[in-house]
Amino acid sequence: MSTIESSAPTEATAPLAPSTPPEADDSMIATTDAGPTLDVAALGQQLMGRWADSRRASRELMRTEAFHRIPTHGMDDHRERVLGQLKLLVERGDVHRAFPAEFGGDDDHGGFIASFEELVLGDPSMQIKSGVQWGLYASAILHLGTAPHHQAWLPDALDLTTPGAFAMTETGHGSDVSAVGTTATYDSATDEWVIHTPFRAAWKDYLGNAALHGKAAVVFAQLITRGVNHGVHAFYVPLRDEKGAFLPGIGGEDDGLKGGLNGIDNGRLHFSSVRVPRTNLLNRYGDVDENGVYTSPIESPGRRFFTMLGTLVQGRVSLDGAVTVASKLAMTIAIRYGTERRQFDGGDENEVVLLDYQRHQRRLLPRLAQTYAMSFAHEVFLEKFDAVFSGRTDTDADREDLETLAAALKSLSTWNALDIIQEAREACGGQGFLAANRLTQLRADLDIYATFEGDNNVLLQLVAKRLLTDYSRAFAKADAGVMAHYVADQVNEAVVHRSGLRRLAQSVADFGSTARSVGYVRDTASQRQLLTDRVETMVAELAGKLRSASKLPRPQAAALFNRHQNALIETAKAHGELLQWEAFTEALETIEHEGNRQVLTWLRDLFGLGLIEKNLAWYVIHGRLSDHRAQAITDYIDDRLLPRLRPHARALTDAFEFAPEHIRADIAKGEEQARQDEARDYYAELRRAGLAPIDEKDLLAAKKARR
Amino acid sequence: MSTIESSAPTEATAPLAPSTPPEADDSMIATTDAGPTLDVAALGQQLMGRWADSRRASRELMRTEAFHRIPTHGMDDHRERVLGQLKLLVERGDVHRAFPAEFGGDDDHGGFIASFEELVLGDPSMQIKSGVQWGLYASAILHLGTAPHHQAWLPDALDLTTPGAFAMTETGHGSDVSAVGTTATYDSATDEWVIHTPFRAAWKDYLGNAALHGKAAVVFAQLITRGVNHGVHAFYVPLRDEKGAFLPGIGGEDDGLKGGLNGIDNGRLHFSSVRVPRTNLLNRYGDVDENGVYTSPIESPGRRFFTMLGTLVQGRVSLDGAVTVASKLAMTIAIRYGTERRQFDGGDENEVVLLDYQRHQRRLLPRLAQTYAMSFAHEVFLEKFDAVFSGRTDTDADREDLETLAAALKSLSTWNALDIIQEAREACGGQGFLAANRLTQLRADLDIYATFEGDNNVLLQLVAKRLLTDYSRAFAKADAGVMAHYVADQVNEAVVHRSGLRRLAQSVADFGSTARSVGYVRDTASQRQLLTDRVETMVAELAGKLRSASKLPRPQAAALFNRHQNALIETAKAHGELLQWEAFTEALETIEHEGNRQVLTWLRDLFGLGLIEKNLAWYVIHGRLSDHRAQAITDYIDDRLLPRLRPHARALTDAFEFAPEHIRADIAKGEEQARQDEARDYYAELRRAGLAPIDEKDLLAAKKARR
Repeated sequence: MSTIESSAPTEATAPLAPSTPPEADDSMIATTDAGPTLDVAALGQQLMGRWADSRRASRELMRTEAFHRIPTHGMDDHRERVLGQLKLLVERGDVHRAFPAEFGGDDDHGGFIASFEELVLGDPSMQIKSGVQWGLYASAILHLGTAPHHQAWLPDALDLTTPGAFAMTETGHGSDVSAVGTTATYDSATDEWVIHTPFRAAWKDYLGNAALHGKAAVVFAQLITRGVNHGVHAFYVPLRDEKGAFLPGIGGEDDGLKGGLNGIDNGRLHFSSVRVPRTNLLNRYGDVDENGVYTSPIESPGRRFFTMLGTLVQGRVSLDGAVTVASKLAMTIAIRYGTERRQFDGGDENEVVLLDYQRHQRRLLPRLAQTYAMSFAHEVFLEKFDAVFSGRTDTDADREDLETLAAALKSLSTWNALDIIQEAREACGGQGFLAANRLTQLRADLDIYATFEGDNNVLLQLVAKRLLTDYSRAFAKADAGVMAHYVADQVNEAVVHRSGLRRLAQSVADFGSTARSVGYVRDTASQRQLLTDRVETMVAELAGKLRSASKLPRPQAAALFNRHQNALIETAKAHGELLQWEAFTEALETIEHEGNRQVLTWLRDLFGLGLIEKNLAWYVIHGRLSDHRAQAITDYIDDRLLPRLRPHARALTDAFEFAPEHIRADIAKGEEQARQDEARDYYAELRRAGLAPIDEKDLLAAKKARR
Repeated sequence: MSTIESSAPTEATAPLAPSTPPEADDSMIATTDAGPTLDVAALGQQLMGRWADSRRASRELMRTEAFHRIPTHGMDDHRERVLGQLKLLVERGDVHRAFPAEFGGDDDHGGFIASFEELVLGDPSMQIKSGVQWGLYASAILHLGTAPHHQAWLPDALDLTTPGAFAMTETGHGSDVSAVGTTATYDSATDEWVIHTPFRAAWKDYLGNAALHGKAAVVFAQLITRGVNHGVHAFYVPLRDEKGAFLPGIGGEDDGLKGGLNGIDNGRLHFSSVRVPRTNLLNRYGDVDENGVYTSPIESPGRRFFTMLGTLVQGRVSLDGAVTVASKLAMTIAIRYGTERRQFDGGDENEVVLLDYQRHQRRLLPRLAQTYAMSFAHEVFLEKFDAVFSGRTDTDADREDLETLAAALKSLSTWNALDIIQEAREACGGQGFLAANRLTQLRADLDIYATFEGDNNVLLQLVAKRLLTDYSRAFAKADAGVMAHYVADQVNEAVVHRSGLRRLAQSVADFGSTARSVGYVRDTASQRQLLTDRVETMVAELAGKLRSASKLPRPQAAALFNRHQNALIETAKAHGELLQWEAFTEALETIEHEGNRQVLTWLRDLFGLGLIEKNLAWYVIHGRLSDHRAQAITDYIDDRLLPRLRPHARALTDAFEFAPEHIRADIAKGEEQARQDEARDYYAELRRAGLAPIDEKDLLAAKKARR
């Protein structure tokens, strides 16, 4: 029933695995008996990516103690410290980088985001508060405003003279921004906007800088002029006077303590008929003249809204990058500890190193592979972002692709990071729970990443809708022949699937030959085929089920979509995972060092086969994998990939290039190894000196033997 | 390919699902068109279980503000508050309950644990610090000591005159207690024990009460006398003088800030040849006379060790119960918010209530089912514990069963709770991240439950080993006939599986009939068969693979086990899940109220089918489910169970019987509903008064229509 016997590890790399004679291996790359070696420096350079210099400069800064979180700080001290850190960042001048030359920047969008992501190593609160100030508040002025706005407000925003809030979310509306309740009504009598909060649910909420430090805000409100609501637009609204008191008509409260990120002063704001000049409308995508006449370069209100929101995509880019950095850190801590810590006798007087346990490998190595996938996928994402924002390739289609990429990758990676950090914490046991080892604080801070800057479940529905749109576009263009071909495929698929014919044929071919059946799913082309096929099939199935929606009245159409909402989200996830896998695979192709290519290919295989294993039921039910092949995947992971990767685990985290000042976890400093060595030496010395007590068990055994 | 069309919801209970004509339903229980109604009071009473009075009394106490966590407290204030809370508990007198009558108790083990579990509602730190004082420190004196020890130390332990540490874990040894480095060497010259810490890894670590409050400790150390090490025993060691200063030879340090539970003063201790009288050995299971001669009522050192540790099983019982209470709380908060909060237009001018979204149901309702399963399983567990500790059924076999139950349920439920609380937090979005809504703090506190009192991954291996032992015992007793029968079954199984015959037969029978194929897996007997069969098959497969271990030298045997370690743990999980399912199913049989039985049967089905869905690949690969049946399970969950349960979600959490003072989450107080109502009224009034602005989109549509 099982194929374990015939697929034992071929290398003597797993300390606990008995060495078996190497069997024929259809691997494309030759390996020596000792296994490949890694060029850590080259791998490190590859991981740093195109903006390596920006990353390294930011990391250098993050070695400074002034940027480090003090774990024992309460909320108030923590907030002050983070504000101080932002001022230090201003002094260094780096925060201007993404802004135009006239404001001291150099239009370096990719480099700005890359360096910004690394701030998470100092303190995620500092990263997010910086994101509020420069990524959201200042960027909204830049991207939604026009030249007069830039001149008036950008310099103070950039140098933190004006800490600002990004007042979009309301207590009543988070994901559905288009439905915010705050209104901005044009009063032609005074040529002013009246910003107003009509009810409690329309209070702005969760805004960084709102509770304490914010002097101004970019407020998103329904623009109403001449009796018409033109949808959500952004307005520049001063909040506090020089002494920090709210200006007339403005009120608010502190969101108080949170589950993490307590270095940020999140708060609520409300407006009672607050008046600002007409020109405080950030008017790049919509303007109102002194007669109250509204004009916009984008006719469709829907497209206009999404264009405005689209300029803020960098928030999602940087979250994706920051959680990837944090995941690297967590993996570094857990794997270092796992390669030093020993527990339970291994049957030979020595206690076993944690990472030599199969379960420990199963817990950490797939997550290391996931971290690499996130890193390579982020690089692709950042390239795309830079290309669009630099204007190199900035078409509507590019923007649309970028949005989809952002929605897919941000949601997957923020969840992945929580999973990775939590497993790292548990893998370090009680040590993992101490603040001194950082994992719990990191997880607490990153928790909210899954639901802010777009709730992950909502973002994935955007991805699914895009997949469905692409699918129907393909059909709109298709001629009758293509359509017929597709339908035939579908029918064929259904027939094959229902009768189980395809799988049965595979089973017969595979029977008794594990090596060959594993071989099939192991190579790059097969992994791609399986992963791609799943996404395409899921999209096609969904499209079939949702086809009637366009003909239904809206409530019924919504109900139809809702009945498939879970499948929609699972489809989007499958798509995002394929993007991560493709990025990993693409990265393999650029590796020149043979050892690096070999080890990273195994790691990519672990990632790819892990995805397939996770959805194994789908592959079997849909006739994509025979039972036999399906079973072989798990065996291949356990018996081949994990033992092969185990010896490289530490080096694979060394390639993340963290300095001790970045890691700052007691258990990742070699202390555990020193303790283990001391204990071992102590017992050895006892034995040598003949002072070791006899174990009662041995005494009993000896007695029994004498009887 | 899909069966969705033919299995649409039969009830009009899902607000977003279009009503379809009810189809024939082979449900055993008649339901009206409006669906069953719940008797919440009766359900609440059932959930409270046998020790309802103890639970209710403890809950009544937990309504008092003095027992509530103050979220903004830093570590120092929090520690002092929790110590004060323990003193309040002493004043109330409840903490003595599990102790003998002569010490003011009434030997009520089940009631003591039940009331103790509810403390988690006030503050998990208080629950765990109480657990350290009475569940570990005082219990060790009671269970490992004898009458003179009880008289000398129990009264002060019980009334908190002597806060005590339970000094078992060391920095170097957590899960492997038998390998602790601390020694207690008998010195016959002075008739004393010399307690000594030979190296850094042997420092006692993570001990509650060690950093600040502990005046004494029960120290676990290797008992050495006359040159023989008799293994780990417990010793009573005074720690601090009246002023709180360490006694001579004792040192230590504070573990400092942790990821949660910061109301407990965890710390480290080390001993430099500290001397205590010979009679400070807690000598129930092993004693030394004034000549240094060791005696024990249990000859086998191994069995002796496990007997001593077994007396401390109540820690695992109470963790299982406490995380169940916490899960109920998290579900209550998330489901209340989910039934009030609205987001995104549903196509009919109204925004949709979150829990009407399929995905939201998929996220919360299976976790509600999981919570119920944990609750019923815990009740079985607590009954067993009480039966053993009261002496009613206290054989070796009973103790062994209790240990296995504890290992299986504690590990599953502590992980389940983290998953439940996290999903609850994410389902509440930004609100879920605020300390005011409690979910993040609850999760942070419970994080360590997964790795203390036995690391979950280690505990599950104990379960697996027990399963394998039972399996081999069954064979040892089996005569040749039974053996042959079994072998035939195995062969048959293998043949059927490899050839796919059984599955193929099923496929043919099912073909085209979703209703019947779902019917098969829906009833109780089929769920039991599928779940049980999986456990049994996994055990049998493992036993086959590990059969040769007994003949191998120890290192090779260890290596063989290690190659199947992941499978071992997955097998134990499957067993634990079956236990939860059986407990849930048993609970159904006692329900008299028809509506309760119906709704809870659906909930149990959701739990059972969820388990099968999670392991669907296994069932299909092993020929237990046809592709068609497998596919139908997901459809049945999505299209039937979720819509049926949706209207009962709120009532199912009301049955947890939490008072507002227990819930203490802003979003679970109806505030969201009030905000929604206010906003809706505002817009209705605008429309009524003709003051609502026209939407630009409507204006454009009207323009287009005119053209």
